[in-house]
Amino acid sequence: MMKSIYEGIEEPTLLLDEQISRANIHRMAEKARRFHLRFRPHFKTHQSAAVGEWFRDEGVSQITVSSVEMGEYFADHGWDDITIAFSVNIRQLERIDALARRIHLGLLVENLDSVKALAETKGPLVDIWLKIDIGAHRTGLDWEDIPAITAICREIHANTGRMNLRGLLTHSGHTYEARSKAEIITLFNESLARLQSLKEELMKMGIEPLEISVGDTPGCTLAEDFGSADEIRPGNFVFYDVHQLSLGVCSFSDIAVAVACPIVAIHLEREEIVIYGGAIHMSKETIAWDGEVTYGLVALPRDAGWSPPVPDAYVARLSQEHGILHYPLAALKLNPVKVGDLAIVIPAHSCLTVQALGQYHTLAGQKIRTMLRPNWTEHQ
Amino acid sequence: MMKSIYEGIEEPTLLLDEQISRANIHRMAEKARRFHLRFRPHFKTHQSAAVGEWFRDEGVSQITVSSVEMGEYFADHGWDDITIAFSVNIRQLERIDALARRIHLGLLVENLDSVKALAETKGPLVDIWLKIDIGAHRTGLDWEDIPAITAICREIHANTGRMNLRGLLTHSGHTYEARSKAEIITLFNESLARLQSLKEELMKMGIEPLEISVGDTPGCTLAEDFGSADEIRPGNFVFYDVHQLSLGVCSFSDIAVAVACPIVAIHLEREEIVIYGGAIHMSKETIAWDGEVTYGLVALPRDAGWSPPVPDAYVARLSQEHGILHYPLAALKLNPVKVGDLAIVIPAHSCLTVQALGQYHTLAGQKIRTMLRPNWTEHQ
Repeated sequence: MMKSIYEGIEEPTLLLDEQISRANIHRMAEKARRFHLRFRPHFKTHQSAAVGEWFRDEGVSQITVSSVEMGEYFADHGWDDITIAFSVNIRQLERIDALARRIHLGLLVENLDSVKALAETKGPLVDIWLKIDIGAHRTGLDWEDIPAITAICREIHANTGRMNLRGLLTHSGHTYEARSKAEIITLFNESLARLQSLKEELMKMGIEPLEISVGDTPGCTLAEDFGSADEIRPGNFVFYDVHQLSLGVCSFSDIAVAVACPIVAIHLEREEIVIYGGAIHMSKETIAWDGEVTYGLVALPRDAGWSPPVPDAYVARLSQEHGILHYPLAALKLNPVKVGDLAIVIPAHSCLTVQALGQYHTLAGQKIRTMLRPNWTEHQ
Repeated sequence: MMKSIYEGIEEPTLLLDEQISRANIHRMAEKARRFHLRFRPHFKTHQSAAVGEWFRDEGVSQITVSSVEMGEYFADHGWDDITIAFSVNIRQLERIDALARRIHLGLLVENLDSVKALAETKGPLVDIWLKIDIGAHRTGLDWEDIPAITAICREIHANTGRMNLRGLLTHSGHTYEARSKAEIITLFNESLARLQSLKEELMKMGIEPLEISVGDTPGCTLAEDFGSADEIRPGNFVFYDVHQLSLGVCSFSDIAVAVACPIVAIHLEREEIVIYGGAIHMSKETIAWDGEVTYGLVALPRDAGWSPPVPDAYVARLSQEHGILHYPLAALKLNPVKVGDLAIVIPAHSCLTVQALGQYHTLAGQKIRTMLRPNWTEHQ
């Protein structure tokens, strides 16, 4: 009999179901093909060259990253067409230019300051995307601020040897605040319509050609109409998580990552279980689930992975190293556990959990590294 | 003229003011001496052998850690009397015993399962502390549950070659929920009284000697009466943070760490500044400050460190790599900044920020590593 992957686990350990993840990638790649969209997935969720190869198997050759460092890491692993989806940090221009000498690089700008700073350095030609705020209000140029947008476009056009104005890019991050699938689709369509209207406005002024790039996992997963978008850049879908589940974007069986945590105490009188697994392993990201604010759902080890969520159980509190599970007596009766067993936490937000743990154990027993831990560390 | 430490900073960078930190350490060491308490500081906040030496300079020779891995790291750096302040995870017994063969080790237990598991392995003698819950309800044995506590004590006494019952230990984590200094002191005194009453109860049954160990930074900083405590284990005081500031436990000038973050955009119309610096750099820990829920306060670089907090400015939102500062126009007038400048974020919770960034730049230009990043990485 094969040894269970759970046997050797002593500490909070990030599990990855390769089969589920590959299915998620395949589905999104298929969808992009169906809608004739360029698929430029965001690699910030997995941060791993090995997982990147699963995308390559689906024909992906262009990617998105969230930092210069991440761009360098994936360039080191053979990716030669990368967009850094983070507005240019002009303190990093030297590194940006060094990277642009190695690969085809796309950058985001959202103000004249950074365009001028780019123009002043004699770096190689880079693609420039205008970061447009279509209502998420995190960052970007207000889509209605035509004067500011055209001023930036003119400045880019005045530096054609240095900058190629590629198009309009947005991250509809406000779909994460939506309360229903219908609302996600409405917000996504609204983003597309606003970008299209902006594009037409700019074309009238002779600012063209312009591509349109959109990005969020909720919208890209649910939409069945991508308007005039040329490119999609979802990221989280590679693993999904409880946040996406709560939005109705994925089902529980689409979630590809979980954290195995040793049980160190059981407090029947307050229906709580204490696990070794805290904020430093799962982050402090929360999600509203079934009327509770939680850091994640709770499952139990199964031969082929993990069980469905234990009913009414959830991660109630996290301190630095401890997690406190709410685990009702009724749940304990149906799903008995004891000190020394493992609980499986399905994280609220998979991106931050990956960031915290930095390496994966696949269910098949493979060890997968990320850029966060260049060397495998036996003890997490 | 000396080059400013800020010149070379391109990315979110953890700053450490050695002078402030050493003063914090000195003050707590002095206080322990004054009250004839053993000072066994918790090293989970700094996680650094180099910072550990600053404690050694104050006469500290016994320490607390929060994981077996952290115990191993500090044992590697010459610490030979360590308490792992985390209830025994019986999946790690082999590693625990290996560590106990190298140093004088103290362990926490809170159930018979772990005591029996310890008894079954033929490891070296370890000190055992009973983890007592005096009302924080994170974990531990209910201080009023005399039957459970005595059963564990008897089991420990039945295995004297393996386990030395050292005493009662608590972490009054609920002082972090207090709303005033007076309430912190009340809660702290209550903890001491409960431990003392439990100790007397156990002594009556012949369970002795028993030491008392207490731990939280708010209580240890503010208390002027330690009752019959033998040992204190505060940790966060080495750096403090906005959380401690909000409790009235420290002043702003006692905070020894901050994160320098490049400014990438300024949105006057919504009084917001976008920084390179997000959840992966500062964690998602929040604190209520001045009626707002925030991830940290905002200061500006100064020659000798950083400025006082910019009035009414705070970290309003964090995504994976971005931070959004609320920065009112009035503040901008008095404290002007531009794209490419640095903002200094004073973190809500310093422990988790250290965990996220994993290495320090001191204001004197020194680079200090932690166990989290065994090798210095030029780019954070």
